[in-house]
Amino acid sequence: MFATSLGEDGAELRPLEPWRAEEFLAHIERGREFIGRYVALPDFVTDLDSSRAYLRSYAEKAMNDTGRIYGIWTDGKLVGGVLFRTMDLQQGTAEAGCWLEPSAAGKGLVTRAARAIIDWAFEERGLHRVEWQVSAANEPSIAVARRLGMTKDGVLRSSYLYRGRRHDMEVWSVLAPEWSAAR
Amino acid sequence: MFATSLGEDGAELRPLEPWRAEEFLAHIERGREFIGRYVALPDFVTDLDSSRAYLRSYAEKAMNDTGRIYGIWTDGKLVGGVLFRTMDLQQGTAEAGCWLEPSAAGKGLVTRAARAIIDWAFEERGLHRVEWQVSAANEPSIAVARRLGMTKDGVLRSSYLYRGRRHDMEVWSVLAPEWSAAR
Amino acid sequence: MFATSLGEDGAELRPLEPWRAEEFLAHIERGREFIGRYVALPDFVTDLDSSRAYLRSYAEKAMNDTGRIYGIWTDGKLVGGVLFRTMDLQQGTAEAGCWLEPSAAGKGLVTRAARAIIDWAFEERGLHRVEWQVSAANEPSIAVARRLGMTKDGVLRSSYLYRGRRHDMEVWSVLAPEWSAAR
Amino acid sequence: MFATSLGEDGAELRPLEPWRAEEFLAHIERGREFIGRYVALPDFVTDLDSSRAYLRSYAEKAMNDTGRIYGIWTDGKLVGGVLFRTMDLQQGTAEAGCWLEPSAAGKGLVTRAARAIIDWAFEERGLHRVEWQVSAANEPSIAVARRLGMTKDGVLRSSYLYRGRRHDMEVWSVLAPEWSAAR
Amino acid sequence: MFATSLGEDGAELRPLEPWRAEEFLAHIERGREFIGRYVALPDFVTDLDSSRAYLRSYAEKAMNDTGRIYGIWTDGKLVGGVLFRTMDLQQGTAEAGCWLEPSAAGKGLVTRAARAIIDWAFEERGLHRVEWQVSAANEPSIAVARRLGMTKDGVLRSSYLYRGRRHDMEVWSVLAPEWSAAR
Amino acid sequence: MFATSLGEDGAELRPLEPWRAEEFLAHIERGREFIGRYVALPDFVTDLDSSRAYLRSYAEKAMNDTGRIYGIWTDGKLVGGVLFRTMDLQQGTAEAGCWLEPSAAGKGLVTRAARAIIDWAFEERGLHRVEWQVSAANEPSIAVARRLGMTKDGVLRSSYLYRGRRHDMEVWSVLAPEWSAAR
Repeated sequence: MFATSLGEDGAELRPLEPWRAEEFLAHIERGREFIGRYVALPDFVTDLDSSRAYLRSYAEKAMNDTGRIYGIWTDGKLVGGVLFRTMDLQQGTAEAGCWLEPSAAGKGLVTRAARAIIDWAFEERGLHRVEWQVSAANEPSIAVARRLGMTKDGVLRSSYLYRGRRHDMEVWSVLAPEWSAAR
Repeated sequence: MFATSLGEDGAELRPLEPWRAEEFLAHIERGREFIGRYVALPDFVTDLDSSRAYLRSYAEKAMNDTGRIYGIWTDGKLVGGVLFRTMDLQQGTAEAGCWLEPSAAGKGLVTRAARAIIDWAFEERGLHRVEWQVSAANEPSIAVARRLGMTKDGVLRSSYLYRGRRHDMEVWSVLAPEWSAAR
Repeated sequence: MFATSLGEDGAELRPLEPWRAEEFLAHIERGREFIGRYVALPDFVTDLDSSRAYLRSYAEKAMNDTGRIYGIWTDGKLVGGVLFRTMDLQQGTAEAGCWLEPSAAGKGLVTRAARAIIDWAFEERGLHRVEWQVSAANEPSIAVARRLGMTKDGVLRSSYLYRGRRHDMEVWSVLAPEWSAAR
Repeated sequence: MFATSLGEDGAELRPLEPWRAEEFLAHIERGREFIGRYVALPDFVTDLDSSRAYLRSYAEKAMNDTGRIYGIWTDGKLVGGVLFRTMDLQQGTAEAGCWLEPSAAGKGLVTRAARAIIDWAFEERGLHRVEWQVSAANEPSIAVARRLGMTKDGVLRSSYLYRGRRHDMEVWSVLAPEWSAAR
Repeated sequence: MFATSLGEDGAELRPLEPWRAEEFLAHIERGREFIGRYVALPDFVTDLDSSRAYLRSYAEKAMNDTGRIYGIWTDGKLVGGVLFRTMDLQQGTAEAGCWLEPSAAGKGLVTRAARAIIDWAFEERGLHRVEWQVSAANEPSIAVARRLGMTKDGVLRSSYLYRGRRHDMEVWSVLAPEWSAAR
Repeated sequence: MFATSLGEDGAELRPLEPWRAEEFLAHIERGREFIGRYVALPDFVTDLDSSRAYLRSYAEKAMNDTGRIYGIWTDGKLVGGVLFRTMDLQQGTAEAGCWLEPSAAGKGLVTRAARAIIDWAFEERGLHRVEWQVSAANEPSIAVARRLGMTKDGVLRSSYLYRGRRHDMEVWSVLAPEWSAAR
């Protein structure tokens, strides 16, 4: 029922609710290898039950106002998404993230979607800081952080163990005054 | 972030999430007497805590896919809403409902909003039957059921005790084939 | 320890507690096909665990005063039962139901048992309305409603999906003043 | 709906369910001082909420088959009760207890009621051992244990702190073969 | 990080936390037959999950101050333990217990460990009575009770069903003044 | 029962369990202003109930192996503590923290205590990275991080709202190989 346009190419952002578990799983299947290079999402979504459980965990965050998840659709197909892994209204902070199946890469979809939800976080919800954590090896995601006008706060050395390898995690952030100044 | 147009007068339908508890409470305050003539909603929403609890109960239904609540905004003001008090995807049934503060009455807002969510229920979610329960004395709401093309299934005699008085409750319904035929 | 006589043929009504799960399952096995024509009860009770879970769900309703289940015994054998699927002491309403294995049919057992629990609901608990929902095709159960002096409130069209087929559900009811007048 | 006769004087045993919280509280009020000499029950039941909570805790035990509570009525008035504070079907053991308001003392009501529930425990539920714990100072209750044919297993020295004083607790018991032999 | 010496032979007492589930399981495996003669502990600890569940149940008791579990280590190997199966700070009572793998028997380890935790219970926590329940056939454990200066309160006849046989359970106890007098 | 020496001045580290709520509260009262300059701990511990709730939350973390809290005692008085606010055994990471009442400052107590628990984390539990988050204005705590041989990973700009002011939070860390090399 609800969709926000992400631009003239017809891309749309929509809430990603638990009843879309089947559609979400099919999308993850298409992107499993590509998405899974730096992000554990595909490891959590391996069948219909785990797909529903994952989306339910975000519905629970929405209920508690501690997180959100949104899907990106192009030509009626779910191809990726953005999320607030955490939101802390008391503290005024949130951590954003994203993923994309390979067929949808290269069109700036994630940047546009992230812009939309950060707008919402700063302007409608009054947050002060949005963070972006990313493996130092994940260049496309770092490029998004840059395009969003974020600043690199530091590198959490060896902080993320993923598929047997330790990753340095970069922390990027943008503050509310920076965001509104850049518009 | 999300809104669906309800027509050329700028009225919009939006998800009504727990973080809007303050706005929801203010709206209920404006409509407390009017809404409360036939509907217990104002009795559940009496302060910020109960307002949040009410919206959270619907966020929990959304998580479990057993109900939904949406607000109607005109000129940026929340003036009413529609909801699925229950949804049973297994059975293919749902019970819809509505409310409105007095300043927004007489513009067909509820009918338009109900049409939008029943469209969603039948077309996007594949339900088979949407029900509308209403006090036999609540003429405006019965008029909405008629405008939606619903049929009266019967009258549950003395089934609803509200503010010390027993109400006969009319049950109206529309089935998926009827809905699509009427479009 | 507790039993209420249902008449001179020795039939008795007793609480149906979780510890009777084995006895309950054996009874459902004997009546699985017959009971299952219109009622989903046998689909919920398929082994010892589900039998206990079903009875526990009613023990939980008893704890919360939101429902009750009772068994009918003849010659020391559990042959059927009556229940309040819901009770709402605030609203003064309840929905009753029944089931029977085929060997016990034709003796008026359900009517007698239903009378006993409706007596209790109206006289001891002060309820105002007892409802009886039944598939329009379930003639024996409709006959019970008639024998209990109930009135047909209406027909919920296509409201019950059972074994792949949609049933119209009749709603019958009796109100406290009607019940006491009829005694 | 359910009652078991305790003898020719019309005394009856009935399930003591949460909806009787008001009646239970009134009874405890009448016996508060008398009952409270050796037993903490009155300290748990001080208003309607705590009365309901106490009865709900036993409804939960009934649901889990880990305890039961029953009331004794004479002339339609609740005057006392018996209970299984614990039941362990796996172990085949239970601990019984009792209480009485003063107006009902001296009629053997507790002995009769305890006999009824111990019959049920041994014969219908197949338990092996029923225990009776009692303060060494509580002579009336010790007399009941004796009348029930129980044996003193020992004295748990200083094991019960009640109203600031430590009590030696006697443990009495009867085993299934002893019970059936004594009938 | 934490250890208390149990004597000059290097034996130590340490908290037995859930993260030691693997070590605990290996120890139980070594003592399964020996420990299991009178005590059900080995029946609860049969694989890594049940081992963790058992230790977690005691972590939960520690959280609620209703029980504790400690391991005995000799030469860096977990060989047995002592526990408070229950603690009731309100009542000032606790029930202690113990177990040992066979290689560690005959060195007084359990007596020393029990002494340490009873010291803590009486002196640091202010308890009044510590109880020791033991099968009348379990002579080594009864010997510990004697060595600890406990008194036999009685025999709970046929109260414990273990591996198909009913055991008389002896109850031994020591009170705070007795404990401090004996030091 | 358990204590680890922190050096020749008699300072000791002990588990800080919920039953010490009263002692913990008294300690926080003594240090409320001093501790509260950069750390919210005193805001969570304002009376006996909140003190117990705080310690219970860490007992729950211990149960789930997701955190730990320890107190520092000098001359039998609780004067501060160290904790793992989070532990993730899967990821091999933990975040450490500390606090101290003013009378105990200047003796290196926190550094010694932190060393003890980091030893445990790396050597006994096999963690890979221990983190230390601290307000950029909190010089004493930054000095501890330096003394522990930690490296500054970065500065999370404006990430912590405390008493109405936004703090830049420094992230310091030490990795297992660095820790063992430095010994």
